[in-house]
Amino acid sequence: MANDLYPAYPPDLTAEQEAYLLTNVKDWSIAHGLAVRPTPAYVPTKQDPSGALATTAPVTLFPSLFPRVCFEQAKGVATAYNELYSAIASDEGWLKGTVEELLEIDDFIAQLWKVHLKVKEEGDVQDLSLGLFRSDYMVHIDPTDSSAKPSVKQVEFNTIASSFGGLSTQVSALHKHLRSIDAYHDSTASTSTDDALPDATSVPKLAEAMALAHRAYGPSSSALPTCVIFLVQDPERNVFDQRHVEYALNTNHGVRTFRLPFQRILDDTALDPDRKLLYTPPHSPSKSYEVTLLYFRAGYSPDEYKSDRDWHARLHLERSAAIKCPSILTQLAGTKKVQQVLATPQSPHLKHFLPNENQAAAVLRTFAPIYPMDKSPAGLEARRLAQNPSAATRFVLKPQREGGGNNIYRSSIPQFLKSTPESHWPAHILMEMIEPPAQKNSIFRNGEVATGGVICELGVYGACLWRSGVVNGERRGREVVENFEAGYLLRTKGMGSEEGGVAAGFGSVDSVCLVDV
Amino acid sequence: MANDLYPAYPPDLTAEQEAYLLTNVKDWSIAHGLAVRPTPAYVPTKQDPSGALATTAPVTLFPSLFPRVCFEQAKGVATAYNELYSAIASDEGWLKGTVEELLEIDDFIAQLWKVHLKVKEEGDVQDLSLGLFRSDYMVHIDPTDSSAKPSVKQVEFNTIASSFGGLSTQVSALHKHLRSIDAYHDSTASTSTDDALPDATSVPKLAEAMALAHRAYGPSSSALPTCVIFLVQDPERNVFDQRHVEYALNTNHGVRTFRLPFQRILDDTALDPDRKLLYTPPHSPSKSYEVTLLYFRAGYSPDEYKSDRDWHARLHLERSAAIKCPSILTQLAGTKKVQQVLATPQSPHLKHFLPNENQAAAVLRTFAPIYPMDKSPAGLEARRLAQNPSAATRFVLKPQREGGGNNIYRSSIPQFLKSTPESHWPAHILMEMIEPPAQKNSIFRNGEVATGGVICELGVYGACLWRSGVVNGERRGREVVENFEAGYLLRTKGMGSEEGGVAAGFGSVDSVCLVDV
Repeated sequence: MANDLYPAYPPDLTAEQEAYLLTNVKDWSIAHGLAVRPTPAYVPTKQDPSGALATTAPVTLFPSLFPRVCFEQAKGVATAYNELYSAIASDEGWLKGTVEELLEIDDFIAQLWKVHLKVKEEGDVQDLSLGLFRSDYMVHIDPTDSSAKPSVKQVEFNTIASSFGGLSTQVSALHKHLRSIDAYHDSTASTSTDDALPDATSVPKLAEAMALAHRAYGPSSSALPTCVIFLVQDPERNVFDQRHVEYALNTNHGVRTFRLPFQRILDDTALDPDRKLLYTPPHSPSKSYEVTLLYFRAGYSPDEYKSDRDWHARLHLERSAAIKCPSILTQLAGTKKVQQVLATPQSPHLKHFLPNENQAAAVLRTFAPIYPMDKSPAGLEARRLAQNPSAATRFVLKPQREGGGNNIYRSSIPQFLKSTPESHWPAHILMEMIEPPAQKNSIFRNGEVATGGVICELGVYGACLWRSGVVNGERRGREVVENFEAGYLLRTKGMGSEEGGVAAGFGSVDSVCLVDV
Repeated sequence: MANDLYPAYPPDLTAEQEAYLLTNVKDWSIAHGLAVRPTPAYVPTKQDPSGALATTAPVTLFPSLFPRVCFEQAKGVATAYNELYSAIASDEGWLKGTVEELLEIDDFIAQLWKVHLKVKEEGDVQDLSLGLFRSDYMVHIDPTDSSAKPSVKQVEFNTIASSFGGLSTQVSALHKHLRSIDAYHDSTASTSTDDALPDATSVPKLAEAMALAHRAYGPSSSALPTCVIFLVQDPERNVFDQRHVEYALNTNHGVRTFRLPFQRILDDTALDPDRKLLYTPPHSPSKSYEVTLLYFRAGYSPDEYKSDRDWHARLHLERSAAIKCPSILTQLAGTKKVQQVLATPQSPHLKHFLPNENQAAAVLRTFAPIYPMDKSPAGLEARRLAQNPSAATRFVLKPQREGGGNNIYRSSIPQFLKSTPESHWPAHILMEMIEPPAQKNSIFRNGEVATGGVICELGVYGACLWRSGVVNGERRGREVVENFEAGYLLRTKGMGSEEGGVAAGFGSVDSVCLVDV
């Protein structure tokens, strides 16, 4: 934790200043849908059985400081990351080699792979894939180099259900509003200038990417109207985050959308003889739609698959002609194992997928060292570090699968390994902790303000639409149709909590206040 | 209640159709600030002390049917009403004669008049007045004439704190959204066409009127920055209604705004030697603003004035150079007594204030017969009707003051008069009940749906900025600077409830689905 990077910010507030700020946060947020459904602890279900109540999404009262050079670095590398991960997701042979190491130890990945193989056997009927990625970073300052400049280091790369794009646009607008009404004390005026608060463009950009995929699908061949499906969890507290993207897709692009709960896939969809995915809304049983794009905001976590029926539902979708965002290959490209393989020192894989040297170098600069936990030379070194109580304090141990949660931090790692069979160790990766600069902010959540030291995580969205090639029956090579950076997200958590997932009940959504450091 | 005017509408919904409709209402409304703070019965204060929860504002699930000819009639007469009421508010001598009849029986009006006289004594320093009026109507079909066409009849004319302009724009957009996603059954498609759902423009129009007044005030003479004050009740459950207008004023017109609770007037404002009104926000004690416009969303109800200090606060504002929306004269022009004097059959007053014969005739067509309850010939006739249990069923007895509530309906009137001293009778007016056509709708409020017969009330906003003249020390004559219709509101209540005020816990906000009848 580097301590002297930022100017003093934000100022202490008088009771009147805080009251003014909070009143405006509470009213503006609800007036603009910067909201979540309340937790059951806040409002018990029986009190509001129809779920009509909402509250301000967890937000910071001030935009957090963020080095301009780091922000530009992260945005600048977004299209290279799109290239990289679309290339990985299109190289089935390579992915197979990587994934096969996990099959015995990660049942979820094994099941996903099985679904992929079944579709492959039958032959795929859709060669377009959409990736709505989010690469998450923290600012890192090398603690061993007193003249070190800050740079971003990647925390993880998300290839499925990258969330908070909807709320990000709104929280950025909130902070700009608060600034415009002088809710920020004069002493911050020189810091939070117009130029320091870039717009968060995730809502229009993510919607644009989905509209491009929708049109690239081509006209309906079934003579039915077309639609985009948001595959969702039900219930979903973070529904407004998703709705903002959906409404932009409706309003800006005239695309019809429906929310399909994961549990209802087999009830409400069917495949026609050409494997076109047909959706019949329960409220309108006589009218069906041909699905152009399946946008996954569900199905990424093992605990959503409770039975064979759920895996059958996933296979049903994967077999279909709808463009998947993401396909199973793209989802698997997002495993921590792939991140580790790329970021293991001296790894040859990055330049294989990114032959452009400038792109590869830019991506490489964002990697923090990551080690496998297997029996390779790098893995044996990692095992030694992770079991050493002193060395372990510089690391985090992460499971390879998506969805957050269950990271093991620093001094808890040795004990965790003792209680875990060694055969399961390779299901994790060991990553050097990123040491972000210290700063202070206030987080408003569930009607309460907490002020103190915070840690920020920057996510940069990337949108990539590509067409896969097939060589000898395997996915290999691809043509990138669209590739653009799609806005940013800042998530901020109290330093007491080591996880960064706001939906999981920690942290908050935030926006950047850029500083030249 | 005429029963055969409208086509069958809306259709009965299956459980799945209602679920789809409701889910979309709940999510869209919060995403777009069509919201209120929950009632204490819904969410007890101690559960949410900071007041961070919100819920969907009471809304209809479908836009209610409304005859196109009636909608056009009401909108078409808005600028004539602006002329009429700005003329009345500028004729102090005439108002005095009308108000003086009430001084002994209505202490609230007497106090307002006293405040006006005190300012008059000292001399007024602001000759501009802004009226943001709302004229409320119901569709009426003469039950005694089988070939009668529907027309609108005025329920009341509001000259202070005309509410729901903010939510009206949003509920109209909600209903259009629901239509665009086919949440309305196919059988309503021929009724709720694009052409049948006019935009509700109240938010941009009300904000535009306030911006025009703000600019007409002229530059600050105190060298301070300028602002508009929203004078508000605290707490205010209907805060988002007000915020939408405020945000439009900020965003579309770059005008600074502050919310000033009625109780804090004397704490947070002061008059300079030229009686410029200076506002010092509690959160920023070293920075003051010159107030250009005072927009009253409080101070209209007797129960807000709890002590001499509150009346002193009102005097303090009235003395100031800020443009008042409304001034006390304008507020008094909105008493039911004035409405009655204009609408008493054969009244000469309308053409006095509206010399343009077409305008006067158009306004006259919107009047339902209204009688005084005094000892004039018309008043004696009214007393006879009101005490007759059979005749009384065609009438409503209304207090002369603003703010809704306390109307006495139909068969309850005779008993009410028996229990009220005769000297207080002239504090009321007697109005023939308007007989609107029957229709059905569903109202969603506090998380619950109620379906059944409903009654709709159309409000048309009018914006008028004028400069008063002075003749022999009295306000007389004026120059109208701006005069435009400023959008509409539809409020809909279950037929079981005879009051129309949504804020008071009855009814809902709605939008029109125009039909050619």
